[in-house]
Amino acid sequence: MTGTDPSKATFSATDYAMMARALRLAERGAYTTRPNPMVGCVIAQGDEVVGTGWHEKKGGPHAEVIALQAAGEHARGATAYVTLEPCAHVGSTGPCADALIAAGVSRVVGAMRDPFPQVDGAGFERLRAAGITVETGLMEAQARVMNRGFLSRIERGRPWVRVKLATSLDGRSALASGDSKWISGEPARRDVQKWRARAGALLTGAGTVLIDDPQLTVRLGDETPFVPPVRVVLDPGLATVARGHIREGGAPTLYVHAPDARMPRGVEADHVAVPVHEGKFDLQAVLAMLAERGINEVQVEAGATLAGAFLSAGLVDELLLYVAPVMLGERARPLFDGLQIDAMAERLTLRIVETRRIGTDVRVLLQPEPPASP
Amino acid sequence: MTGTDPSKATFSATDYAMMARALRLAERGAYTTRPNPMVGCVIAQGDEVVGTGWHEKKGGPHAEVIALQAAGEHARGATAYVTLEPCAHVGSTGPCADALIAAGVSRVVGAMRDPFPQVDGAGFERLRAAGITVETGLMEAQARVMNRGFLSRIERGRPWVRVKLATSLDGRSALASGDSKWISGEPARRDVQKWRARAGALLTGAGTVLIDDPQLTVRLGDETPFVPPVRVVLDPGLATVARGHIREGGAPTLYVHAPDARMPRGVEADHVAVPVHEGKFDLQAVLAMLAERGINEVQVEAGATLAGAFLSAGLVDELLLYVAPVMLGERARPLFDGLQIDAMAERLTLRIVETRRIGTDVRVLLQPEPPASP
Repeated sequence: MTGTDPSKATFSATDYAMMARALRLAERGAYTTRPNPMVGCVIAQGDEVVGTGWHEKKGGPHAEVIALQAAGEHARGATAYVTLEPCAHVGSTGPCADALIAAGVSRVVGAMRDPFPQVDGAGFERLRAAGITVETGLMEAQARVMNRGFLSRIERGRPWVRVKLATSLDGRSALASGDSKWISGEPARRDVQKWRARAGALLTGAGTVLIDDPQLTVRLGDETPFVPPVRVVLDPGLATVARGHIREGGAPTLYVHAPDARMPRGVEADHVAVPVHEGKFDLQAVLAMLAERGINEVQVEAGATLAGAFLSAGLVDELLLYVAPVMLGERARPLFDGLQIDAMAERLTLRIVETRRIGTDVRVLLQPEPPASP
Repeated sequence: MTGTDPSKATFSATDYAMMARALRLAERGAYTTRPNPMVGCVIAQGDEVVGTGWHEKKGGPHAEVIALQAAGEHARGATAYVTLEPCAHVGSTGPCADALIAAGVSRVVGAMRDPFPQVDGAGFERLRAAGITVETGLMEAQARVMNRGFLSRIERGRPWVRVKLATSLDGRSALASGDSKWISGEPARRDVQKWRARAGALLTGAGTVLIDDPQLTVRLGDETPFVPPVRVVLDPGLATVARGHIREGGAPTLYVHAPDARMPRGVEADHVAVPVHEGKFDLQAVLAMLAERGINEVQVEAGATLAGAFLSAGLVDELLLYVAPVMLGERARPLFDGLQIDAMAERLTLRIVETRRIGTDVRVLLQPEPPASP
């Protein structure tokens, strides 16, 4: 975690309301800003909002610039609420810090510092140097949760890992035959689409491609825009490259293979080699490779083997579990393979972040205990 | 299900509010009325409540009598709201129907008919014969849920069966060693006590007595009065009668054994023989025997074997599941033994009645689909 500005101020109810609104605005970019973070901005004169903006996509205007344009002359003397530190470097657009200075805002309230190396405090510094009052840390926890993917990539060098699983009440992810269609109800399967749309990559294993043959695309069922996540298949021997729905549907597919595997003649596919130890992928290396490609959040949608491997390696940041009120019996497949626990003290403990009824099922969002940062 | 009075009336908002209050009053008897049903009564003149009562225990005054005493002369011309049909027979107390007539109430609103053979419509009939307006079926569903134990015993000749289980997220009830202390957190274990206090019997198996050695008593942690449920141990060979905490704690214990088993010399204990088929108890016969002893609700607190046997026999009316956010791994014991499912179509489907966070755990109350009557 990066430090918060030491000059932590006391914020008013108006400040909270404005920042809450800026956070909601930022969230609108959840499906499109990648690899950029979501950012929202509200410009207000006291209780009156004079301009709002949010960042929609890489290369497009930043939230502050849109909000300033909307505010026009009303920006002078106003307070700008930003969910992330304004940039100080010239990227695809000019530095937002300069735009705020030029517009004459008198106060900037930021939820959090931007750990991106080219910002990392320089944005707030530039504002202060121009005589603007800068206060930070308002609703920082919420801002960090929203951008947990981006923060993970910048701060830890790996994407935020969400493992999605559908389970029966008796903790089974598939029948002995491998059949898992469908444990969850239709509303739950629809809900999954929103989580997919947030992710930069949807990761699965060769086994799932062979057995379930998923397309792993985002199907929101409406016109909401999104950037298609890249589908990542862990396939040591490149055994599945020539087949499957995973190559259809208008989204990129990336095959991750062992260093000694060769692409079959005549098959064209994006692929990358990652080290394998004792027949198993180095999952840390897989994640580092994805981070280098600008992936903020990875959603793992695989079987018990790969889910268990991520869990055993301590690489699960959140577990998205859809629990269906059905029993699949003792012969069915476990939720995680390879989890060997002999004493209560060795049990793996998580923390329930949220539970919600989705149709006939219950969605449980969990995080490891102690929680992963951020 | 018994029939509702065909003359189903339209009820006012006041009627609903009064019956809701009567139901809340009735619930106060949840831990004490057994084997009697819970009953509440509100007497009102229009919007004004002039008397309330609830049935506390067998042999004590009925709800109507207490409410009439409280109302005194104000009962004349009033409406009496009763959660169950007033009795027409002389039991421990005089017939409540006669008391309502004598007090001069002009209207009786009942949630439901009492299926008890000595009432079963005769109470409402007596009131009508006396010229009182009788309307029934108001909040009947809620009234039936409240007294589901009593109704099950009277209508089906067996108690309502609630199976309580604590499970890990990966659907395990104990480690391979049998150790299950403790999967659930302390708040969940405290919550279980309230469900125990509702039950007429807490049923377990000899295996649980040997491994966990539970006391199976009610420990509410405060001064709330309750009638101790009888502890029922299914012990074919009477192997556990001389041992265990299950004989301590000031509650009765009943051993259920195979017909050929003999009580060890020198051991005094209540016991009853029940038929055994292929080494397994006839669970229908066990439940019929408990119903004959006046047990309305049985709470099964046993291991995977007995829980699985009840489930496989279709004898589970509700499943009280405490899901802890822990993983116990693939070697741990399943939630239910003996559940053999080979195809998705064979899976056992339930319906989630309620989910609630209890401390760090989630409590899920489920019923079979289609639901058990009542």
